[in-house]
Amino acid sequence: MSKLVIDMMGSDLGSLAAKEGVRLFSAAHPETTLVLVGKKEELADLTGYEVIDAPDVLKMDVGVLEVLRKKGSSLVKAVSAVALTGADGVISAGSTGAFLTAATLINKKIPGVLRPALVTAFPNLEGDGFATVLDVGASNANTAEELAQFGLMGTLYCQEVYGIEKPRVRLLSNGSEDGKGSPLGKEAFPLLKADKRLNFLGNIEASAVLKGQADVIVADGYSGNVMLKSLEGAAKGMSGLLKKAFMRNPLSKLSYLFVRGGLKALKDKMNPKKTGGALLIGVNAVVVKAHGNSDGEAFFHAIELADRLAKAGLVEKIAAGVANG
Amino acid sequence: MSKLVIDMMGSDLGSLAAKEGVRLFSAAHPETTLVLVGKKEELADLTGYEVIDAPDVLKMDVGVLEVLRKKGSSLVKAVSAVALTGADGVISAGSTGAFLTAATLINKKIPGVLRPALVTAFPNLEGDGFATVLDVGASNANTAEELAQFGLMGTLYCQEVYGIEKPRVRLLSNGSEDGKGSPLGKEAFPLLKADKRLNFLGNIEASAVLKGQADVIVADGYSGNVMLKSLEGAAKGMSGLLKKAFMRNPLSKLSYLFVRGGLKALKDKMNPKKTGGALLIGVNAVVVKAHGNSDGEAFFHAIELADRLAKAGLVEKIAAGVANG
Repeated sequence: MSKLVIDMMGSDLGSLAAKEGVRLFSAAHPETTLVLVGKKEELADLTGYEVIDAPDVLKMDVGVLEVLRKKGSSLVKAVSAVALTGADGVISAGSTGAFLTAATLINKKIPGVLRPALVTAFPNLEGDGFATVLDVGASNANTAEELAQFGLMGTLYCQEVYGIEKPRVRLLSNGSEDGKGSPLGKEAFPLLKADKRLNFLGNIEASAVLKGQADVIVADGYSGNVMLKSLEGAAKGMSGLLKKAFMRNPLSKLSYLFVRGGLKALKDKMNPKKTGGALLIGVNAVVVKAHGNSDGEAFFHAIELADRLAKAGLVEKIAAGVANG
Repeated sequence: MSKLVIDMMGSDLGSLAAKEGVRLFSAAHPETTLVLVGKKEELADLTGYEVIDAPDVLKMDVGVLEVLRKKGSSLVKAVSAVALTGADGVISAGSTGAFLTAATLINKKIPGVLRPALVTAFPNLEGDGFATVLDVGASNANTAEELAQFGLMGTLYCQEVYGIEKPRVRLLSNGSEDGKGSPLGKEAFPLLKADKRLNFLGNIEASAVLKGQADVIVADGYSGNVMLKSLEGAAKGMSGLLKKAFMRNPLSKLSYLFVRGGLKALKDKMNPKKTGGALLIGVNAVVVKAHGNSDGEAFFHAIELADRLAKAGLVEKIAAGVANG
């Protein structure tokens, strides 16, 4: 049994996508309790849910320091509602910076966690499965000790979410050989290697991240963010050119029909909506950030990810793992 | 008139690709003198060139500290030959680390240059042209002053190579707004802004790098390298899936014929061989690094890039620009 709070207003599409996601999720998981936060009148057609009225919607470009002053916003009210309603977690499609700030300041770090990390799954383009990368942007600077702990949190996450007993951990670097890396990476390397709880296999280059060579990839928040956005940009740009190639003339349009199946596999792989968004790990709640442009299906996957993590007791597992350091 | 030294042995394909590249280049540019460095017997079929015999080939994984001890290697001999033969530049497809180390230590920094940078061109997937990104990996850590100077060197480079009068300069960051960035980026931002020789437009996210929003993108060598390799990895992985989609069945294979033209545009855009490889900027020679897996055509483009830069007097322009700081 789990209980989750949903910020219904944060998405680019307003409450429509969130409402569809909630309907889909509740049909599939009637055992999970959802608490909805948003403009009450807009949510009136969803019956049978606890609703917390929030008149304001946080703008996407809200400054990080302003966030906590926006107490009437659906985002801050949703984050606060976790403790108030005894929920396990919270989902929002609102501003990443604002959501991470609110979740860190209001839900607070798990005792022993040095720094929460934003986690996201990168597809393996040469096979099945995912690489779990952290941090992809909760911080813009980290210490070596924080990086080493990301290795542990990522390991615990992979064990819970994917059932991988000994997740292969690698450190993002500018070369795959030992001894490569930024000064920070070089400092973190021996710490990761020394931690007997980790199956640490050394460095990995960004060019190999989509090749299935690691289950957990440790990065500082700044480089992890650069990597995430580079891959997103390349995927988007190439998809655009691909579309153009098929739209060129009647024959190319026709030929699309014959490769549609294969292209769907490519599209699904590169579709962040399928993976349920990103997750803030290391705070006292399951915190899932859905994409800003989430549709109903994306919302559904985000809620489902949060539900799975809540049921698996991820927060408790991280707390126990970090305490045994 | 220019004179260039070619390391004939560094490529994964041995001297074959380099030899083809030399033939193609000399046919197109008979006015340029080429000095060839490699195993004399392997180069015997190329007539009319000055050849410097180099019995050894540097291994790709040679340690940076070992490089200069490998005096008999074609790479070190080629780099040394620049000054010895009065050449303008040198081209190699050998180990990037070894080549950069040798070029920096032997050809030396231009007076006033704080740190040489590895430069590469990223395609604009939504239109024409390129973004010139530096540093993509000559350093693994930089100072804010070095980043600011990368903005200047990139500007001078774009003016010479692309004839862009006021290249749009942006700083790689984790957000496009002012005030975003790593601690280093935040320190470099005001320096870039204060330099009146630059058309500095602020921050850029990695997701926008392929969108034609900048002519010059300044990055520290570590993040620039992560970005370069992320894009390479995504391009390679997606191309692989695309190929699979077309190879699925007879109809999908047939349909390839009708989109081939459009796909060629995509392929050409993402093909690093067309852009002539990467360039080390800031040393007293034109230093072009061809891809390790260069074929004859890629070698040709790399030599042509070096030739263009030599004829444009890039080294002298950088020296003058840096001196006027």
